[in-house]
Amino acid sequence: MNNEFAQRRDLIGAGLASRELDAMLISSAANVRYLTAFTGSNGALLVLPGEALFFTDPRYAIQSSREVSCKTKVCKGPILSAVAATVVRRRVRKLGFERAHLSYDCFHTLSDSLPARTSLEPVAGWLEANRMVKSEAEIDLIRRSVATNSKAFEHATRRVRPGMRELDLAAEIDYHMRRLGAEKPSFETIVAAGRRSALPHAHPTSAVFKAHQLVLVDMGAFQGGYASDMTRMLSLGAPNPRVRRVYRAVREAQLAAIDSVRPGVTAAHVDRVARSVLKAFHLDRAFVHSTGHGLGLEIHELPRIGKKDKTRLAAGMAITIEPGVYLERFGGIRIEDTVVVTQNGCEVLTPTGKELRVV
Amino acid sequence: MNNEFAQRRDLIGAGLASRELDAMLISSAANVRYLTAFTGSNGALLVLPGEALFFTDPRYAIQSSREVSCKTKVCKGPILSAVAATVVRRRVRKLGFERAHLSYDCFHTLSDSLPARTSLEPVAGWLEANRMVKSEAEIDLIRRSVATNSKAFEHATRRVRPGMRELDLAAEIDYHMRRLGAEKPSFETIVAAGRRSALPHAHPTSAVFKAHQLVLVDMGAFQGGYASDMTRMLSLGAPNPRVRRVYRAVREAQLAAIDSVRPGVTAAHVDRVARSVLKAFHLDRAFVHSTGHGLGLEIHELPRIGKKDKTRLAAGMAITIEPGVYLERFGGIRIEDTVVVTQNGCEVLTPTGKELRVV
Repeated sequence: MNNEFAQRRDLIGAGLASRELDAMLISSAANVRYLTAFTGSNGALLVLPGEALFFTDPRYAIQSSREVSCKTKVCKGPILSAVAATVVRRRVRKLGFERAHLSYDCFHTLSDSLPARTSLEPVAGWLEANRMVKSEAEIDLIRRSVATNSKAFEHATRRVRPGMRELDLAAEIDYHMRRLGAEKPSFETIVAAGRRSALPHAHPTSAVFKAHQLVLVDMGAFQGGYASDMTRMLSLGAPNPRVRRVYRAVREAQLAAIDSVRPGVTAAHVDRVARSVLKAFHLDRAFVHSTGHGLGLEIHELPRIGKKDKTRLAAGMAITIEPGVYLERFGGIRIEDTVVVTQNGCEVLTPTGKELRVV
Repeated sequence: MNNEFAQRRDLIGAGLASRELDAMLISSAANVRYLTAFTGSNGALLVLPGEALFFTDPRYAIQSSREVSCKTKVCKGPILSAVAATVVRRRVRKLGFERAHLSYDCFHTLSDSLPARTSLEPVAGWLEANRMVKSEAEIDLIRRSVATNSKAFEHATRRVRPGMRELDLAAEIDYHMRRLGAEKPSFETIVAAGRRSALPHAHPTSAVFKAHQLVLVDMGAFQGGYASDMTRMLSLGAPNPRVRRVYRAVREAQLAAIDSVRPGVTAAHVDRVARSVLKAFHLDRAFVHSTGHGLGLEIHELPRIGKKDKTRLAAGMAITIEPGVYLERFGGIRIEDTVVVTQNGCEVLTPTGKELRVV
């Protein structure tokens, strides 16, 4: 992989001229990791033509020497002051920065440390656009994260029964993920029983599972830095006809959306496909979020599989497909897989069956 | 607690005039939670004199109606556009915003949606300063989080033996935290064996514990939204004289720093006390971070118990005391407790003994 990080830095270095920049400052943790392999929380990368300089603090001196292959400066004071000093020394006139990730505060700290001849140029989404299409090595990491996540689901759900608490199942899930090699969950594991499943982002509570309840499980792992994401539904006992009908609607919407994924179609098109299936069931108004999102070094990346995202899908993009229906007195039903866009369509990485699991 | 949230909002509303603001926009997740009890990821609060308006998106419509006691607007589009519309309608002329938390991007989105008569005023650390001193209710929550964390440590470390992997112990720790009621770890649990303990922020790996190794365990929980933080050292078999000597130095530094905590002394003074003890052992150069940090709704809050922080400690502040020594070929030793400043000194909340634990 080391070579891959250098190649990514070279790509940014080579793109400076066409953006009329002398240098580009990368400050967001995920983008820094993408370009350097650095896994710590405080680092910045200054990319110059044909060269890149990494900045971190003394806590990460040893770690960065093991992880980062480019020239590194360990700063005793604030990192941005050291960056500014280098920018001055190298006579940079136009310095790009990540407009979505630099705070108003950091922008002014940086701007106050630079001479009048240096201008700060806001750059939007350069790295995020590069990160949308994953390399083979990245897809392998996502595949491994997805496999771990699904194995953890199988291990943890074996024990589900009435009387178990939401938080116990969440703890089991996270435990098995970790034992299987994940660094951590890629977001707070969601286990929501009964009506609480209507909260798309419910925190697990000490509520206990009751007979005939539906349980929504939304879980993902970070492994080797890469995210997975899956949602499955459990039913404690046989589901009633209404549950079966809503479940069928969501599953049809999810399958149709997956079928529509191929290079060249827009993210908005995939979202529309899911929505139109739910409309036929008169459930489209209960689908209150977008159909999915890119994932990789972050759990939410571009593209957004939503109404307004006109990004054309391309082979190598990793996305989730996760339509859901939320009805306040009934509960929520969502089905979600992680898929990768291929030359001819897509590959569903998630190996877990998507039948309603009756336990 | 509901009353406490309203009181906090009132305090901000009452402070607007002296800061020459007509309204204040709170956008950082922790500050929004502090003022509203909202536990979701996308919310903003607009505080006006005698009134506060909460903004979120449809994913959180049900959740926010249960959590948030002030008037709420569920926005279909971007939250900041809805905030801007309200600001215009209310004829706000001076709108404060959190300069450390608003991105360059969001600042410009907001600024572009506002008429020329409305000025955006950067505000630094207002909420963070208010949050430094905890209420009784908050200290109770921190105390519970600390108790959970220490119990999880006891449960998990029972199984430690040579051959166990770093990540297995980390998984056990996180599992027990969750079972005991924590929402999640307050940071990625650190389990670092042997020389890896010299990396202050090591990720747990599949490295196995070997006889006579030192293992550094740094762990914290979020429970009821509030953080705990503790570091302890395990020794697999009897420690050698050098380990015992370094351990003694760190423990003396930690005890001396705790002894120095009382209302009126500066954070820098407490840091100096820890450093001077290590200097007597010729180990001060190996202490590469600050002595501690505030904690609460976030794992790192003000004050910073470091060389440059002149904040005077006050009763009700919750801080960590965690000196450490890191020697590349030897490893790292750190001891950390969570303490609360009291009227006369401080109370160490962490119940776990701080002897070097031989397992």
